[in-house]
Amino acid sequence: MRATFMYGAGDVRVIDVPDPVITEPTDALVRVVLACICGSDLHPYHSMARTPEGSSMGHEFVGVVEDTGRDVATVRKGDLVIAPFAWSDGTCEFCREGLQTSCRHGGFWNSGGSGGGQAEAVRVPFADGTLVAAPVPENSPLIPSLLTLSDVYGTGYHAAIKANVNPATTVTVIGDGAVGLMAVLSAKRLGAERIILMGRHTDRTDLGREFGATDVVAERGDEGIATVRELTGGNGSHVVLEAVGHLPAYQQAIGVVRPGGVISRVGVPQYQDAPVGIASLFGPNITLTGGPAPVRAYIETLLPDILDGRVEPGKVFDREVGLDGVPDGYQAMDARKALKVAVRP
Amino acid sequence: MRATFMYGAGDVRVIDVPDPVITEPTDALVRVVLACICGSDLHPYHSMARTPEGSSMGHEFVGVVEDTGRDVATVRKGDLVIAPFAWSDGTCEFCREGLQTSCRHGGFWNSGGSGGGQAEAVRVPFADGTLVAAPVPENSPLIPSLLTLSDVYGTGYHAAIKANVNPATTVTVIGDGAVGLMAVLSAKRLGAERIILMGRHTDRTDLGREFGATDVVAERGDEGIATVRELTGGNGSHVVLEAVGHLPAYQQAIGVVRPGGVISRVGVPQYQDAPVGIASLFGPNITLTGGPAPVRAYIETLLPDILDGRVEPGKVFDREVGLDGVPDGYQAMDARKALKVAVRP
Repeated sequence: MRATFMYGAGDVRVIDVPDPVITEPTDALVRVVLACICGSDLHPYHSMARTPEGSSMGHEFVGVVEDTGRDVATVRKGDLVIAPFAWSDGTCEFCREGLQTSCRHGGFWNSGGSGGGQAEAVRVPFADGTLVAAPVPENSPLIPSLLTLSDVYGTGYHAAIKANVNPATTVTVIGDGAVGLMAVLSAKRLGAERIILMGRHTDRTDLGREFGATDVVAERGDEGIATVRELTGGNGSHVVLEAVGHLPAYQQAIGVVRPGGVISRVGVPQYQDAPVGIASLFGPNITLTGGPAPVRAYIETLLPDILDGRVEPGKVFDREVGLDGVPDGYQAMDARKALKVAVRP
Repeated sequence: MRATFMYGAGDVRVIDVPDPVITEPTDALVRVVLACICGSDLHPYHSMARTPEGSSMGHEFVGVVEDTGRDVATVRKGDLVIAPFAWSDGTCEFCREGLQTSCRHGGFWNSGGSGGGQAEAVRVPFADGTLVAAPVPENSPLIPSLLTLSDVYGTGYHAAIKANVNPATTVTVIGDGAVGLMAVLSAKRLGAERIILMGRHTDRTDLGREFGATDVVAERGDEGIATVRELTGGNGSHVVLEAVGHLPAYQQAIGVVRPGGVISRVGVPQYQDAPVGIASLFGPNITLTGGPAPVRAYIETLLPDILDGRVEPGKVFDREVGLDGVPDGYQAMDARKALKVAVRP
C-alpha cells in the first residue's frame, strides 16, 4: 500500500510499503477513509534530523474496519471507526481513569510497530480500547467533523476541561490553528460567555468567531497582553488555553492570565525549561496544567453534537488532498496557506 | 520600641525604633504577644545583599489590639488577634474570592510603611480585612497553635486545597520543616489515607507521623524517588505538596508524582526557570499549582479545631526566645537545631 514517511526536515514522501496485517488477537485492520495533517506534524517538518529509514506519519484517521483479531469484541468488519491519536488497552487503571495517553500498554501511532494514519490502511493495536464506532456511512458529510475527534477537537476540549472552564470564567485562547479554534468551540460548549481569541489570520479568527469567540486580538507580545488586560478590566483572563507550543506563547499566557487563574497547555511544548518562579506562576498563584489529550476519553461525549449537526468542527479543514498530494499539504500548512489539510487516500 | 532588622546575609539585629502609631482610619495598633521566625526568613538570611537601612523582619504574630482607627469595626481594644502574613483590604474582588495575597490594596509586612512582627508592636493596615479575633486570653496555652494560622498552617492547608487532596488521593509531602508538617496535618484533615513524608530529621518526621504521616522516606534524589514509587505501586503519588522551595525539591516532585497528578508548591521558589516540557510536566499531564497562601481565607476554617483542642499545630515550635534572642533563633533554625522558633517580646 501507499503510506507517508518523513525522512528529515521538509522531506515528506509517499512510498510503497507492505500491507499491514493483524499480528495480535486484539488488533483491527482499518482502511483509512479520511486522515489529515496535524499542526504538530510541522514540528518535525521543521527540525527532524535526517534518517534513511524515515518515520511513518499521521496520527488522525477515520476508517472502515476490514478485519479484526479473534479477541476484538466492540468493533467488527464494516464499522466506521474513529481512531484517537494514541492507542490504549482500555483496561489499565489509567484508561479507567480517562488518562489513556498514560496507558500502561498504549502508544502513539508510528511507534511500537504501528504505522501512521496518512496511509491507505493501519493496523490498530488494542482495537477495543482504542477505536470508537460511529453509526454513519463512509460517504457521510459528517466524516470531516468525526475526524476532528481523532485529535484537534478532543485536544481543545482537554485544554478547557483541565482548566475547569465554566460560565463564570473568562477564557483567552492563544493560537488560531485548528487546536486553538477547537479550544474556542470547547470553551463555548462548557458555557464560557467571554472567549478572547489571540490570532493574526483573519480567515481563521473569523471561523473562531463562528465557533464562539467574542473578541479577537491580533496583536502579539506586550501589545497583545495589554489588549487582553484591557478587555478583562485590567485583571487578565481566568483561563488561558495555550494551543501553540512555542515559548513566546507560554510567556504570552503568563502575561494575560489573572491572579489565581489557570494556564492550560495543549500545544506540544518545543522547550524544556520555562519561567515558573515568583514573578511568573508562583507569586500570583497561577496553575499550569494540560498535556497530551486523552482524546479517547472525550469521543463519546463530543460525538452526539456532531451526529446531530449542532456543531461542525470539520470546518477547520480547508483543503483536501489525495495521498500523492500529502507533501504539498505539509508545505501549504507550513506556509499558512491551509489551516488544516484532510487526506483522502 | 525594640524591633528586629536584617542588614544583610546572616546579620540580624534587634534595635530601637519609634513606636508605631495609627496613621490611617483603617489601622489597628497591635502589641505582639507571640511572633516567630519563618523558614522563608532563612532565604534572605542566606543571600540578602548588605543594606545600611536594613529590613524590618517577621510576618507572623498574634497580639492584643491596643488602639484602632476610627473606621475599624470588627476588632477592638483588648481583642486577641491573629495576623495573616499578608494584609488585605477585605473588600476587593480578590479578597472576596479568597485570594487575599493578590488584594488590590494589600501588601506584606515590612513593606508599605508597615513594620515586621518580630517586634514589640505593629501598625496593621486594613485591620478589618486583615485581623481575625480569637476568644482566648493572651496567656492561653493555645497561643502557639493560633500563631501557626499566621502562616505555616494556612500555607500547608493552601498546598493541600490547591491540589484537591481528598480520601482517594495519595499524598507525598516534600520537606519536614514547619510548612511540610502542616501540609501533612492539612492532608490528614482533608481525608487523605496515605501520606508520605519526605524528610531526614527524625525528630521532625516523628512529629509528622503524629500529624498524620503514614510513611516517612528519609532518602533524597533518585533514591528517594524510587522509594516513593515503590510505596505507591510504581505509579507515583497523586499529589505532591512541595514545602521547600529549592530546585532539587521541584525535581524530586516531578520524580514522585503520578501521571495526571498535581504538584502543589508552597515553598517560596528560589529559582525562576524549571523543567515544564514533555519530559517533565507536559507528557504525563501533571498540574503545577500553588503560590503564597491567602492564609486569611483559611483562619476561620482552621480555628475551631484549635480552640477545641482537636489539633495542636503549635507543636512545631520547639524553642522560644525573647526579642534579644532573635539573632540566636535565626542561627538555630539555620543550623537545623530548631524546627521553628517562637519569639515572645
